[in-house]
Amino acid sequence: MNYQDKALKAHKKLRGKITINAKDSLDSLEKLSIYYSPGVGAVSSFLAKNPQETRNYTWVNNSVAVVSDGSAVLGLGNIGPKAALPVMEGKAMIFKEFAGIDAVPIVLDVHTADEIVRVVKAIAPSFGGINLEDIAAPLCFEVEERLKKDLDIPVMHDDQHGTAIVVLAGLINATKITGRSLSETKIVCLGVGAAGTAILKLLFKYANPKELIAVDSQGILSSKRNDLNPDKDGLLRFTNGRDVQGTIEDALVAADIFIGVSRPNVVTKEMIKSMHKDPIIFAMANPEPEIQPHDALDAGAAIVATGRSDFPNQVNNALVFPGIFRGALDNGVEHITDDHKIRAAEALAALVEKPTKDSIIPSVLDKRVAPAIAKIIT
Amino acid sequence: MNYQDKALKAHKKLRGKITINAKDSLDSLEKLSIYYSPGVGAVSSFLAKNPQETRNYTWVNNSVAVVSDGSAVLGLGNIGPKAALPVMEGKAMIFKEFAGIDAVPIVLDVHTADEIVRVVKAIAPSFGGINLEDIAAPLCFEVEERLKKDLDIPVMHDDQHGTAIVVLAGLINATKITGRSLSETKIVCLGVGAAGTAILKLLFKYANPKELIAVDSQGILSSKRNDLNPDKDGLLRFTNGRDVQGTIEDALVAADIFIGVSRPNVVTKEMIKSMHKDPIIFAMANPEPEIQPHDALDAGAAIVATGRSDFPNQVNNALVFPGIFRGALDNGVEHITDDHKIRAAEALAALVEKPTKDSIIPSVLDKRVAPAIAKIIT
Repeated sequence: MNYQDKALKAHKKLRGKITINAKDSLDSLEKLSIYYSPGVGAVSSFLAKNPQETRNYTWVNNSVAVVSDGSAVLGLGNIGPKAALPVMEGKAMIFKEFAGIDAVPIVLDVHTADEIVRVVKAIAPSFGGINLEDIAAPLCFEVEERLKKDLDIPVMHDDQHGTAIVVLAGLINATKITGRSLSETKIVCLGVGAAGTAILKLLFKYANPKELIAVDSQGILSSKRNDLNPDKDGLLRFTNGRDVQGTIEDALVAADIFIGVSRPNVVTKEMIKSMHKDPIIFAMANPEPEIQPHDALDAGAAIVATGRSDFPNQVNNALVFPGIFRGALDNGVEHITDDHKIRAAEALAALVEKPTKDSIIPSVLDKRVAPAIAKIIT
Repeated sequence: MNYQDKALKAHKKLRGKITINAKDSLDSLEKLSIYYSPGVGAVSSFLAKNPQETRNYTWVNNSVAVVSDGSAVLGLGNIGPKAALPVMEGKAMIFKEFAGIDAVPIVLDVHTADEIVRVVKAIAPSFGGINLEDIAAPLCFEVEERLKKDLDIPVMHDDQHGTAIVVLAGLINATKITGRSLSETKIVCLGVGAAGTAILKLLFKYANPKELIAVDSQGILSSKRNDLNPDKDGLLRFTNGRDVQGTIEDALVAADIFIGVSRPNVVTKEMIKSMHKDPIIFAMANPEPEIQPHDALDAGAAIVATGRSDFPNQVNNALVFPGIFRGALDNGVEHITDDHKIRAAEALAALVEKPTKDSIIPSVLDKRVAPAIAKIIT
């Protein structure tokens, strides 16, 4: 049976992958009176006078909303809130398994930035953090920025920053193996949606690479393009300093690193061969990578990473978001900063004691990961 | 230690009374691939094409949002969303204990009908039902009406209908004991907020009593009053048919039944004595009843019910909402109707095999209650 059939069968059997449990039973009138009326009134009165104590008396110290409008779900596009729910429940499972966090799937039937921001702000007092998920670019940028500004709890769009942090961690180890300094490399990123944009920004912040080129389906982002939205236009501030034009094929000539967050099978062996010696290939398109690992290796790639668990070097956000929120909740961190992201990437990279071409990123099952990342979110 | 101190201590120890658990562990790459990417993509694709199957593949078949804006919390008034959270968590515990339902506390930082309706509609695809809670009257009426109209999942404001159903159940048994027919009684309801309004409506619907009088802090609701809001004005359609005026003292003369959902200690022994022989007294103000049970009994009351667990005949919503939602979720019921409420009250009353003056309502700990009510929500 393939994964698709296994997944359908398992989901139908469970009818929901998460459940809520009470931390104590209600088997006596006394317990009902303590946990509910009239006793709970004393707790509510106390919190009305001492709102800063809420995290010590309610589950907001450990709860995160996983919020999506279903507009960019996995590789499936805009499938709407209900169809997105199984993904958000899966995310909630991962939050619990790796970080002990109570994550609640909240799928939204609204789809403009104004509406999403309004709804998330309205429900925010219920939670200790907001994990935005599978919201399409460029809407996701505005939604995250406004929520970070308006809320005093951590907000992170995982498709952006989770991916960027794992990619940076992988590149730290990959460049170590190939004897490069990231700041001396030419890096080409194909795909400038949520993930691509965040990867480019984080790489610039971390290493200010010699050359950073962003490419979308219409080609290299340059000042000559007149079809760029404001978010893509903003990338020109720190990418494509020589203002070159062309296709992904042109961009990859003499590049050291390829980062793909785009579509399956759009990179050829010839393009890999045109790159600098021992190129590093992160081909993370779903469900099939931009180029199959064996083709990339045949064409001379030194190291290949993908989004898949059945190849070495899986770039999986699940390595990052549990630890980020664990640390933020435990340490009362209200804003996830670029510095947090960089330190998270460094902590993740450091967990691979001896990086090899087939091991630049820890396994997603490695239980050391979330605590190691949580520790640096302070 | 009193309940207040016990409650504060217990809440501080637990730091949240509910927790989310995964129904399976994620201890292998295969499980991660089935429950999350890439396998979950097949489930999302399937649901995008077959939205009606969502309840068979996600937790919406068993999840309810407990939604409050914190504007009318217990007897505490408008204390805001954060301070309301312990009450909603307590409600979630009760949902789980008595009906196995996964209830999520959602406290809202918005306070107009338009905003509350907009936010609840936006998050509705995440849940199988909406339990509105502790939203002040008259706002609660509009919010519930609009959500019932706009959503295809069950919506119930528990402060209204949960209370009304338990009161009706209690009155069915109390009138049996005192040898009355409800339709032949004079009933006075003091307090016409969420609970009082719903009680009056349900009693009218069920029994069309000989005389039904609504009284608020300014006196009897009559056509001579010029201070009635539209919701109170609407009650005149079926209350106070003789259009009398006066105080609660005037209203209670020759009444058979007193229902109090108002403030502590506003009814005197003299008022009880002015009632018809063997009056039935439901004094449900929090935290102290409108009249202490021993005073009411001294003054000739045949039966006294309160909201408290330390007196006989506790009127507790927890008897009703778990079963209502259990039935609605299991039987695919999209709207809780007046007929459902009446049948729920009858089912609840019938669980007391031999009603006596100290036993007209089942114990809140009675595990037969939720299944008995669930069965009739079809």
